[in-house]
Amino acid sequence: MIKAGIVGGSGYTGVELLRILAGHPAVKITAITSRGETGQKVSDLFPSLRRRVDLAFAAPDEAALDQCDVVFFATPNGVAMQQAAALTKAGVKVIDLAADFRIRDVAEWEKWYGMTHAAPELVAEAVYGLPEINREHIRKARVIANPGCYPTAVQLGFLPLVEAGVVALDHLIADAKSGVSGAGRKAAVANLYSEVTDSFKAYGVPGHRHLPEIRQCLSHIAGGREVGLTFVPHLVPMVRGIHATLYARLTREVSEAELQAMFESRYAGETFVDVLPAGGHPETRSVRASNMCRIAVHRPQGGDTVVVLSVIDNLVKGAAGQAVQNMNILFGEEESLGLTALPVSP
Amino acid sequence: MIKAGIVGGSGYTGVELLRILAGHPAVKITAITSRGETGQKVSDLFPSLRRRVDLAFAAPDEAALDQCDVVFFATPNGVAMQQAAALTKAGVKVIDLAADFRIRDVAEWEKWYGMTHAAPELVAEAVYGLPEINREHIRKARVIANPGCYPTAVQLGFLPLVEAGVVALDHLIADAKSGVSGAGRKAAVANLYSEVTDSFKAYGVPGHRHLPEIRQCLSHIAGGREVGLTFVPHLVPMVRGIHATLYARLTREVSEAELQAMFESRYAGETFVDVLPAGGHPETRSVRASNMCRIAVHRPQGGDTVVVLSVIDNLVKGAAGQAVQNMNILFGEEESLGLTALPVSP
Amino acid sequence: MIKAGIVGGSGYTGVELLRILAGHPAVKITAITSRGETGQKVSDLFPSLRRRVDLAFAAPDEAALDQCDVVFFATPNGVAMQQAAALTKAGVKVIDLAADFRIRDVAEWEKWYGMTHAAPELVAEAVYGLPEINREHIRKARVIANPGCYPTAVQLGFLPLVEAGVVALDHLIADAKSGVSGAGRKAAVANLYSEVTDSFKAYGVPGHRHLPEIRQCLSHIAGGREVGLTFVPHLVPMVRGIHATLYARLTREVSEAELQAMFESRYAGETFVDVLPAGGHPETRSVRASNMCRIAVHRPQGGDTVVVLSVIDNLVKGAAGQAVQNMNILFGEEESLGLTALPVSP
Amino acid sequence: MIKAGIVGGSGYTGVELLRILAGHPAVKITAITSRGETGQKVSDLFPSLRRRVDLAFAAPDEAALDQCDVVFFATPNGVAMQQAAALTKAGVKVIDLAADFRIRDVAEWEKWYGMTHAAPELVAEAVYGLPEINREHIRKARVIANPGCYPTAVQLGFLPLVEAGVVALDHLIADAKSGVSGAGRKAAVANLYSEVTDSFKAYGVPGHRHLPEIRQCLSHIAGGREVGLTFVPHLVPMVRGIHATLYARLTREVSEAELQAMFESRYAGETFVDVLPAGGHPETRSVRASNMCRIAVHRPQGGDTVVVLSVIDNLVKGAAGQAVQNMNILFGEEESLGLTALPVSP
Repeated sequence: MIKAGIVGGSGYTGVELLRILAGHPAVKITAITSRGETGQKVSDLFPSLRRRVDLAFAAPDEAALDQCDVVFFATPNGVAMQQAAALTKAGVKVIDLAADFRIRDVAEWEKWYGMTHAAPELVAEAVYGLPEINREHIRKARVIANPGCYPTAVQLGFLPLVEAGVVALDHLIADAKSGVSGAGRKAAVANLYSEVTDSFKAYGVPGHRHLPEIRQCLSHIAGGREVGLTFVPHLVPMVRGIHATLYARLTREVSEAELQAMFESRYAGETFVDVLPAGGHPETRSVRASNMCRIAVHRPQGGDTVVVLSVIDNLVKGAAGQAVQNMNILFGEEESLGLTALPVSP
Repeated sequence: MIKAGIVGGSGYTGVELLRILAGHPAVKITAITSRGETGQKVSDLFPSLRRRVDLAFAAPDEAALDQCDVVFFATPNGVAMQQAAALTKAGVKVIDLAADFRIRDVAEWEKWYGMTHAAPELVAEAVYGLPEINREHIRKARVIANPGCYPTAVQLGFLPLVEAGVVALDHLIADAKSGVSGAGRKAAVANLYSEVTDSFKAYGVPGHRHLPEIRQCLSHIAGGREVGLTFVPHLVPMVRGIHATLYARLTREVSEAELQAMFESRYAGETFVDVLPAGGHPETRSVRASNMCRIAVHRPQGGDTVVVLSVIDNLVKGAAGQAVQNMNILFGEEESLGLTALPVSP
Repeated sequence: MIKAGIVGGSGYTGVELLRILAGHPAVKITAITSRGETGQKVSDLFPSLRRRVDLAFAAPDEAALDQCDVVFFATPNGVAMQQAAALTKAGVKVIDLAADFRIRDVAEWEKWYGMTHAAPELVAEAVYGLPEINREHIRKARVIANPGCYPTAVQLGFLPLVEAGVVALDHLIADAKSGVSGAGRKAAVANLYSEVTDSFKAYGVPGHRHLPEIRQCLSHIAGGREVGLTFVPHLVPMVRGIHATLYARLTREVSEAELQAMFESRYAGETFVDVLPAGGHPETRSVRASNMCRIAVHRPQGGDTVVVLSVIDNLVKGAAGQAVQNMNILFGEEESLGLTALPVSP
Repeated sequence: MIKAGIVGGSGYTGVELLRILAGHPAVKITAITSRGETGQKVSDLFPSLRRRVDLAFAAPDEAALDQCDVVFFATPNGVAMQQAAALTKAGVKVIDLAADFRIRDVAEWEKWYGMTHAAPELVAEAVYGLPEINREHIRKARVIANPGCYPTAVQLGFLPLVEAGVVALDHLIADAKSGVSGAGRKAAVANLYSEVTDSFKAYGVPGHRHLPEIRQCLSHIAGGREVGLTFVPHLVPMVRGIHATLYARLTREVSEAELQAMFESRYAGETFVDVLPAGGHPETRSVRASNMCRIAVHRPQGGDTVVVLSVIDNLVKGAAGQAVQNMNILFGEEESLGLTALPVSP
């Protein structure tokens, strides 16, 4: 059994990790910490876990995290970078669900995240945990930077086009929409039920932290060429789900059928990427509570603009599920182990 | 492997059965029918099942249902009663998720359901599939009447009080609230998103078909004494969940602590009934997408009115999950097999 | 023009008062205060008021409240009682939308609200602002205790039965359901979108502050006789609306038609109480954003239990709208002035 | 008083027209028709109108529509074109809220709407009812083509950029999101509460009927130059609201401040278009139940892509409210008469 620890288990990413790991046949959760909830039973905070998770939150410095095989950080940005070095030294694999190890350019990271990085040397070593691109590097990693939710949906959508080199890289557009759970489980007026319900809005148009992450990765896929990206995130009155609507201009003639084949062949071997038949429109509830990403590709009215639709559950493929997928790869397990539950619909 | 067939698989109960059975380690779904969707792939109708359910809907008379070990009827009322006799004769177990076999008094049934019963002899034989009361009879049944969603939540809430004989049976009140999926997947203006959202209402106050079902069962639990019940169902703007708020008057002094102990001891051995600690308020999302029923018991201000709060997911413990629980009992499997997925929250 | 001031204008009751008063033909809003938002433009906080409300929040002690004709307190409990005496001395009418003046028994109030009352002499003088009962007293009041949202819906529902003396007063039951805006616009995890959506729960079963308020008023209506009430509030995943489902036992034979006539005649002259035709089920959206209360009365299956369904918009008839209705009465205006906007549906 | 008739009053556009017109000080609703609801009281279908609208639905051929001053068609496409000629001949103004008169190219219309046009001569005469562009023509029109909901939001967003000639017209992108009421009040599985809730999807990517309407109008604004537009509509789990996110590429240097000034000056005199301060993000609830359009303009990271955010209530500025605004212009009333109710928020 893989002994797993969770740091910062009282948020939505934390409870989703608990839900998945508690049902994972090869994992034993041995430690869970929360600064704010120390001493409280996990199932008192999350009654959905009653009878199945019999742990209490430990203080961060009292949990025997170095006895774990793997530690997940479901913490705010800036926590994992403080503790990762000691853990890796103790032989513990680290999977950070926050952003500490996602941006390779430390200066760029410090600009967007507004703090000094505590472990730049680990940034260089860390592997970006998007299995559909990086599977082989993940296998041997000590520190995994689990991708952001928007970046996962956007990258999987653009990936075949960028790899094939058929679209202009200077003016990509990602119009992305997220459910409210992406904002986390913290008391804030902006996320109150009465503020969010029956409303829709864009936010962060001048600049969102997922922009440099997406740009870096698409550039990497494009063999280092620079990528121009306009990224506009929106808040949807729903709990779970991300829908990315992507726009790119073709640089040479590619028929809609060829685009369809391009996507299908790129993802033919992937367990967690499902390309819909031509003409499809994936909806977020078709992946709810599952680790699946569903994608459709269109070329409306035969113009030179390609439209890609990509949906994930932000808490699963966009966070906890992808982290467990990475863990499975790290420990040589079947990649889908513990991740086979079907989406919940309706 | 248990060979399972589903009749009427295109509604919400059907897709929930598919979700559960497709992940059940001892089941193989061998047939699924739908009059309206004949020939269509199941996963075209329900994209959440893509890559996992590779069946097409068969016409009702072309499916080899008599080759199944068990057939689930996820049909409108009045269908199972037409086919159950032939199936049982062929040795196939029948689990009806509709109401055909729930009311023992056929005349009463015909009054509430507005049709002539086609198989009164099977009504006499059928077993009411609430495992927490009827486990031993279920084990040997040929036909199981799977309980209604409201009746499940209401009966499990009243059960300990009625068995203990501590409340007046002549004026029980069940104020029940259901999510919209309980109304099924049929085109009807009343169930449109724009009709239901940001609104709340009671319905069926003059009389609802679940009233005689609940009354019959509570009377049975009470050793045949007559039960007076006021039952008011309400529609909640949510997809899944039933919350029953139950009121009963104590006929003798029972302290709140004794009530708590009464509930805990009654359900001590039950996998799918969870009694919250004293003072608790279960919420429906704590059981979403799971087969659990959570219950709390209160005696407000020390008065003689007991208040019980009981929550289930109407599509799981109130329908498909309970049906699979019954199937497990019928076939000698572990009662929780295939039903261990944790609730999805948030 | 009536010069109106608002103390505590940054919550949902405050913004709803602003919405109504900004469109009221006989009112000029001359002052608005908010401790937390001092200096900010009202329409920066509430963009829905842009171009129509050109005020900034003043510090509580800098607003010239004593120059107003009327001051509304849309504050937490315990604020109005500090300032009401000075204002009334200055000839300003006070309408408190919080609970400071609702409970006549000061000791009882202090028990439920956990503080010492600062103005017990005004409690004795204050008039309970439910126009359908107290219109004549309201006309001459200096301080009006605007009723709570639950109490408004529950009292208007029970009123005809209690006045007619046809139901047992010792075991009344009010099973009430509220939208989330009732919890106010304050940062709290429990009211986050992701906590509330697709879920339903009861709360405060052991005791809720609206219980003594309702009990006092029903007792008053009953000529001082004691009233036994079980009150269970629930949280509905919707923004606006209260639905009260009321249960009472008949003490003598009254036919359903007589009950219907009793309700219709009691409310015949009321602008803001609408009795539905026999057999009706009011839904909360039929009163959304309006000051209307809609009521239906049932006697299910001819038993001796009467069921009353009563709906209001908690922010309007349950708060700001009723406050304006009271203001209209106080100043001799048409009772419906500024309150004639039709409900918004869907 | 303006005598107004409504044809097809049983849908969401119809009930919204009723809500607005019933409160309009210069209008008397004299006729309302509905094929499906003939004889039924309007307020039985829409209880929100009880006590305020005392009309019954008439059969289409029995209503004295030719006695009206103006007739609104809140019907499916293809109805108004059958009746408009006779009405205009009788001196009745016609305002069609459907699409019959929106597309000037009849062949194009017939292609997208799949029927033969019954009154091509009126298409040539009809005036496109977007007051912010066409006010003077509206004043003298006999037939007004009320714009679609998406086209209203999209055009008002692009208008200042296109008029100023600062963006490339060949690759405009409109990523638009609509609440579910836009799909109308008809029984359809796709619009059920349980299908739409907690989900998000694009639809009609290969081609949506609002595409040619938007393209025609933007081309008209651009002095007849051709416009290349990619239009992707999405369904949001909310009742009311449209949010258009618009992308255009600058063809010459225009600073963000200049863009802001360009929008502010273009809409300086408009009652129903509100340009937010620089950096703003309008949310749909800030216009709910009102005729307002709120717009913000951004130039993210100083790149050459302009992003415009434009929100309306699809049932008001996107349908019934704009129709009443057009009626006010037609009859020489104050343009905002009857349209001054503030948005309902929360």
